[in-house]
Amino acid sequence: ELRFDPKEHQHLRYNPLRDTWVLVSAHRMKRPWSGQVEKEEEDQVPQHDPNNPLCPGNTRANGEVNPDYNNTFVFENDFPALQPNAPDPGYNQHPLFQSKAARGVCKVMCFHPWSDVTLPLMTLPDIIKVIDKWAELMVDLGSTYPWVQIFENKGAMMGCSNPHPHCQVWASNFLPNEATLSDRCQREYLKTHGEPLLLQYAKMEAERRERVVVQNADWLAVVPYWATWPFQTLLLPRRHVQRLTNLTAQEREGLASIMKRLLTKYDNLFQISFPYSMGWHGAPTGPYLKEDQFHWQLHAHYYPPLLRSAGVRKFMVGYEMLAQEQRDLTPEQVIHLGNSITATYAIYKTG
Amino acid sequence: ELRFDPKEHQHLRYNPLRDTWVLVSAHRMKRPWSGQVEKEEEDQVPQHDPNNPLCPGNTRANGEVNPDYNNTFVFENDFPALQPNAPDPGYNQHPLFQSKAARGVCKVMCFHPWSDVTLPLMTLPDIIKVIDKWAELMVDLGSTYPWVQIFENKGAMMGCSNPHPHCQVWASNFLPNEATLSDRCQREYLKTHGEPLLLQYAKMEAERRERVVVQNADWLAVVPYWATWPFQTLLLPRRHVQRLTNLTAQEREGLASIMKRLLTKYDNLFQISFPYSMGWHGAPTGPYLKEDQFHWQLHAHYYPPLLRSAGVRKFMVGYEMLAQEQRDLTPEQVIHLGNSITATYAIYKTG
Ligand SMILES: O=P(O)(O)O[C@H]1O[C@H](CO)[C@@H](O)[C@H](O)[C@H]1O
Ligand SMILES: O=P(O)(O)O[C@H]1O[C@H](CO)[C@@H](O)[C@H](O)[C@H]1O
Repeated sequence: ELRFDPKEHQHLRYNPLRDTWVLVSAHRMKRPWSGQVEKEEEDQVPQHDPNNPLCPGNTRANGEVNPDYNNTFVFENDFPALQPNAPDPGYNQHPLFQSKAARGVCKVMCFHPWSDVTLPLMTLPDIIKVIDKWAELMVDLGSTYPWVQIFENKGAMMGCSNPHPHCQVWASNFLPNEATLSDRCQREYLKTHGEPLLLQYAKMEAERRERVVVQNADWLAVVPYWATWPFQTLLLPRRHVQRLTNLTAQEREGLASIMKRLLTKYDNLFQISFPYSMGWHGAPTGPYLKEDQFHWQLHAHYYPPLLRSAGVRKFMVGYEMLAQEQRDLTPEQVIHLGNSITATYAIYKTG
Repeated sequence: ELRFDPKEHQHLRYNPLRDTWVLVSAHRMKRPWSGQVEKEEEDQVPQHDPNNPLCPGNTRANGEVNPDYNNTFVFENDFPALQPNAPDPGYNQHPLFQSKAARGVCKVMCFHPWSDVTLPLMTLPDIIKVIDKWAELMVDLGSTYPWVQIFENKGAMMGCSNPHPHCQVWASNFLPNEATLSDRCQREYLKTHGEPLLLQYAKMEAERRERVVVQNADWLAVVPYWATWPFQTLLLPRRHVQRLTNLTAQEREGLASIMKRLLTKYDNLFQISFPYSMGWHGAPTGPYLKEDQFHWQLHAHYYPPLLRSAGVRKFMVGYEMLAQEQRDLTPEQVIHLGNSITATYAIYKTG
């Protein structure tokens, strides 16, 4: 029989954080592409646009005027998917027609007063302000809500409708599906193996070095062994940290620095302002603050849609939606590709 | 307290086929959209293109010449994600770095010799030929493979790179994630409630009528109570049928007819050749053919990406990828919207 070579032979890899498998078919990168090509260039983005509701001093849809903010600025989403006081659908439902109350808040957080910067183009002190504000929102919203989802949709390809650098924070009275799944997987791993899943994983990746994109004293960014998106990464602290709020000042500095390097590498890969959706997962909050959450390790997921170039994305469609996620190059091949990409100079501006 | 109104108040709905919840925030449809707008028109598609590897008589990448086929035509995918003889990665792996062998075949199936038709534009006898061929492939590949995934990616937005009407058939030596999940949910439902999940569901939807898009003597198409994509539908037989191969001649006729009506409604909704990914789920095959699969009910999922118009899609991004799927109108509102849409005249051609 043939000797197994992950670069040549399709195989399945297990995602221990989601208890699912991904189909890895490296040889698929060779197929020609004559499908959809994305618009490569966004319109030139001005530093300040008087019509952009996210810029300092402008008036938003609800009539409120933004302050002349200097670093971050947080406001309530004018079209929230979650509101604090939605009534309860009521109980006694048939098992096939079940609904539940959903309550929460949706906030928007601008990273910087200028529309023409992105995180990798910002200074470290300004990125630290973003991290501090994330932690502050986790404290505020997390005091009552069990789950506070911080996420950034970057680029039109990821459904972002405003080029101003910003993220969103949605807090809910329920644990979302992905949180429930990740909680269960981490809890079971600790029980079976005696160590938090992602703490052990970070140590092993740091030793193996095969999938490390960037690292520093406190942080590690890897293309996880089980990555589904071609250039997916996982950002992990080296210390056991359960929530963003538990990061020390030094770890926040280290985080700002590794984020800048990681995102600069992304931008330099295809020489564009790289699109992605990213978000933080940490131990649940609200009522869970009083419970043991030792199994949790804080982490951020980066899910970028591109596959071959700035214009050709990976489509997670038929087989992926109906059967199983499938990728066209191995995580180790991504590292190989990325090794020649500099993380030093941030050169690609939006627009 | 306010009275609950699903059209006004966000809530969660339970998906019993996947054991997940979807966040339904109907009021989000009111938000303005200034994000990405999709290209609305594809280039005019000729009936026969001498350079299209899917047309009759043309030569494909591997040098093979297509026959002058008259209805369906099946061939091996020239860039398959699954091949029959990939070697095994081997065992004794660390729990965080697990891989498994993946073997299978990928086939492409053309629906019709002409590039400028789609299923809703085909005649009923020609659609029946497609259904018969699906069943034939299920028999052939299902004799050894545990899972045979039939799926269609339609439209450039769904990663389809060839306008010629076709679907794909990927057979694997493993049960993919979605199959495993659906199998577990249906099995547990039967155990707890004494009736196959989707058989009971079809009966209840037929009685309630609130979410029925089209129906006939043998079939029902509904926007499921737990739909995640805005215009998602679920196609169900009324009789207990475990696999495509078990459909009677009459049920195949009825299926051709309901598919034509459903897809015509889709096309007429935004007056375009509606993009979607669709696929069939039925009881597993191969070694499972000998086991009891009473809990399974055959069904097809249609996952279309559009939200507001031919140009504005729903983005399943940050919150959806990291926390939970979220929809912007209720399934019942979709039915209301769709009621005025004719299912009779198929008028929108590709291109
Ligand atoms: O096989 P195709 O049509 O070239 O490719 C399309 O469908 C596949 C199966 O859903 C996906 O993996 C690809 O991302 C998509 O572009
Ligand atoms: O809230 P936004 O930025 O308008 O909307 C974007 O992010 C949301 C959360 O991931 C998604 O539900 C929307 O589909 C997407 O367009």
